[in-house]
Amino acid sequence: MISELRKDPISGRWIIIAPERRQRPDEYACPRPENEASSATGCPFCPGNEAETPPEVFSRRDPETKADQPGWRVRVVPNKFPALKRGSTAATRTTGLFTAMDGVGAHEVIIDSPAHDKELADLEPSRIHDVFRTYRDRIIHIGSETSCRYVQLFKNKGWEAGATLRHPHTQVVGLPVIPKRVSEDIAAAERHFHETGSCLACRWAREEREARERFLEANDHFLAFHPFASRFPFEIRIQPLRHAALFYETQDDELAALATVVKSLLTSLKIVLNDPPYNFVLHQAPNPEAAAQGRTAESVRAFHWFFEIIPVLTRVAGFEWGTDSFINPMPPEEAARLMREKRGQL
Amino acid sequence: MISELRKDPISGRWIIIAPERRQRPDEYACPRPENEASSATGCPFCPGNEAETPPEVFSRRDPETKADQPGWRVRVVPNKFPALKRGSTAATRTTGLFTAMDGVGAHEVIIDSPAHDKELADLEPSRIHDVFRTYRDRIIHIGSETSCRYVQLFKNKGWEAGATLRHPHTQVVGLPVIPKRVSEDIAAAERHFHETGSCLACRWAREEREARERFLEANDHFLAFHPFASRFPFEIRIQPLRHAALFYETQDDELAALATVVKSLLTSLKIVLNDPPYNFVLHQAPNPEAAAQGRTAESVRAFHWFFEIIPVLTRVAGFEWGTDSFINPMPPEEAARLMREKRGQL
Repeated sequence: MISELRKDPISGRWIIIAPERRQRPDEYACPRPENEASSATGCPFCPGNEAETPPEVFSRRDPETKADQPGWRVRVVPNKFPALKRGSTAATRTTGLFTAMDGVGAHEVIIDSPAHDKELADLEPSRIHDVFRTYRDRIIHIGSETSCRYVQLFKNKGWEAGATLRHPHTQVVGLPVIPKRVSEDIAAAERHFHETGSCLACRWAREEREARERFLEANDHFLAFHPFASRFPFEIRIQPLRHAALFYETQDDELAALATVVKSLLTSLKIVLNDPPYNFVLHQAPNPEAAAQGRTAESVRAFHWFFEIIPVLTRVAGFEWGTDSFINPMPPEEAARLMREKRGQL
Repeated sequence: MISELRKDPISGRWIIIAPERRQRPDEYACPRPENEASSATGCPFCPGNEAETPPEVFSRRDPETKADQPGWRVRVVPNKFPALKRGSTAATRTTGLFTAMDGVGAHEVIIDSPAHDKELADLEPSRIHDVFRTYRDRIIHIGSETSCRYVQLFKNKGWEAGATLRHPHTQVVGLPVIPKRVSEDIAAAERHFHETGSCLACRWAREEREARERFLEANDHFLAFHPFASRFPFEIRIQPLRHAALFYETQDDELAALATVVKSLLTSLKIVLNDPPYNFVLHQAPNPEAAAQGRTAESVRAFHWFFEIIPVLTRVAGFEWGTDSFINPMPPEEAARLMREKRGQL
C-alpha cells in the first residue's frame, strides 16, 4: 500500500499517511523498545550486516572494497520503511475539501560511520566532514529528481528524539511539496528583504553576536547561538556567515569548519546535559526549480539556510498543540552561561 | 524571577520563557519520574491533601464543606509552577529584532475529581458534566481579566503526554497574546467565510459525515471524526453542530451531550489502544475584546470551536521540526474501522 500525502483543509499543512511504517513493531509501544539496546549484535547498520538493509545507493569506502560489503566509512541505503517512494510526480486529487496525492519522493538513511557506539560528537572532525559531504551529495542527488520540491535532512539521536535504531544515522526525505514551515520561513525572509534590502538571518546573527549573552561560538565560516525566543531548553541555531539559500552551495572548506562547530557543540551538550537525546535538523530553501510555483527563484534566495539542534528534555503537550506556542523553562541566556562554563573546563 | 513572553523574529511565534518551572525535579529527567507512581500517598490533588496546593479559587463541593477541605467534586487551584502570573497587561519591549513582554496572564489547574485513579473516561457522565461546566466557568473568569486575549484549556494524560502528576486534571492558561495557531485557524475560517459565505468547519463536518469512512459518532449537539489529514494515529476532532466561536457559549444541555461523546470516545481509545497517554485540547476564538486588534469581532466569529484528542503513540522528531509536516503511519479510515469494531463489542 503506497503512502499518500494529504492536505489539511484548514492549515494547508501536508501530512504523509504512511501505512507501511505501521508494521514497525515499536509503532504503538510507548515503553522503550528492545532495539534501542546497546548491543551491536543484529544491528542492520553495523559492518558485516550489510545484507540486512536494502542495497546501498552511495558510500564512501576503501577503493578495494565492494558495495554492500564492509570497508565503508559512510553508507547510504534506502529507508526500509519509507514514508515516500520514488516515482513520477503525482497529480493532486480533490474531492470537496479533501486534497491528496500519491506518496512520491525519496527516503534514505545515511549511516554516519561503521561504529555502533560512536555518536557524531565522538567522530574525528575528518569523519564528520565525510558525513557532511555525504549530506551534500545526497541532497544534490535527491534534489535533482523530478518529483522533488524540497529536501529535508535530519538526525534523530536517542529513543525520545524519535530514533528506532541506536546506530548513529541521518535521514534524508525528498518531498513533492513545499512544507508549511519552509513556506513560512521563506515568506518572512522575503518580507524582510523587500522592506530592508537585506537578509533577516544575517541581521539576526549580527544582533545575537552583539548581545553576546546567548552567543556560543563562531569560526571563519559559521556561528552558533541559543535563539532569543528558544522553544526548547538548550536549542541551538548554527548558520553560515556567507549568505546562501541551499546547503549544497557549501564548499569543502566550509563543511570542514561546520564539522568543527558541530563537534564542539554536540560535545558540550553531551557534557552539560549528560548525553541527551536530540534532533539535528536542516532548514533550507526549496529546490530552485520548485520555487517557480508562486515565487521567483530570487525571492527564495532571500532565505538563509541553517541547522538546528534540539535536545529533547521536555515534552510537547496540550498547550503546544493548542497554541503552537511553547513553554520553555530554561532562559537561553542561562543555557549559554552553562555551556560556556563547561566549555571552559574542557 | 517572573516569566517572559518572547517573539520569534522569523515566525512571529510567542514563546513563554518560564524559569520558575525549571525547578521542577523532573525537568531534565527523561526517565519516567517517580511521581507518576500509581500510589495516592502524598498526591497534592487527593482529598485530605488540600494544603499542598495553593488555596482553591473555585470548587464544586457539598454545601456543608469549607474551601480547601474535602467534600469537593471538582476543585480549581492556581498552578504551583505557573507559566504566566496575574498582573496588568504588560507593554512589549523591543530592541532590534528582539521583542518581549512580561509573563502576565493566568495558569490554573482543574482537578477533575477526588478520585486519584479515575480518568475522565471512568467518571459518570454527570461528573464529566460537572468538569465541563467548570471548564466553562474558569474560561469565563480568566477571559474577563484585562490582560487576557486568549484562553487555552488542555488536559495531558500520562507521562508521555506531558503530565507530571497522575491524578487526573486539566490546565487553563490565560494568554496576553493571540497564539500563532489561533491566528492561522481564524485566518483560514475568515477566508472561507468571505469566499463562500459559510463556515469551513461546518462544511468539513458535513463532508466527513457524508464520506462516512472516518466518521465516529454524533448526537443532537456534537459530532466526532478522525480528520482526513490526521497528523497522528487515532487523532479525533469533536465539534459542536451549532456554529459557535467560543466554548463558553455552550449551554448546559449541550455540555451534557459533550460529556456523553467524550466519555464514549475516551473509553473506545482506552480499549483499542490499551489506555494510551493523550492530550485533550480546546481550540476556540480569542476573547471578543481582543479580536479588535486587526480583526473585526465578526470575522473572528467565522471560527468554529472544537476539541481535539491526540493519543501519544508516535514521537515528534527531526522531520516534523524541519517541515511542520507529519508522518502518520495509521490511515484515519483504518483507525475509524478499528474504533467501530471495538465499539460494536461494548
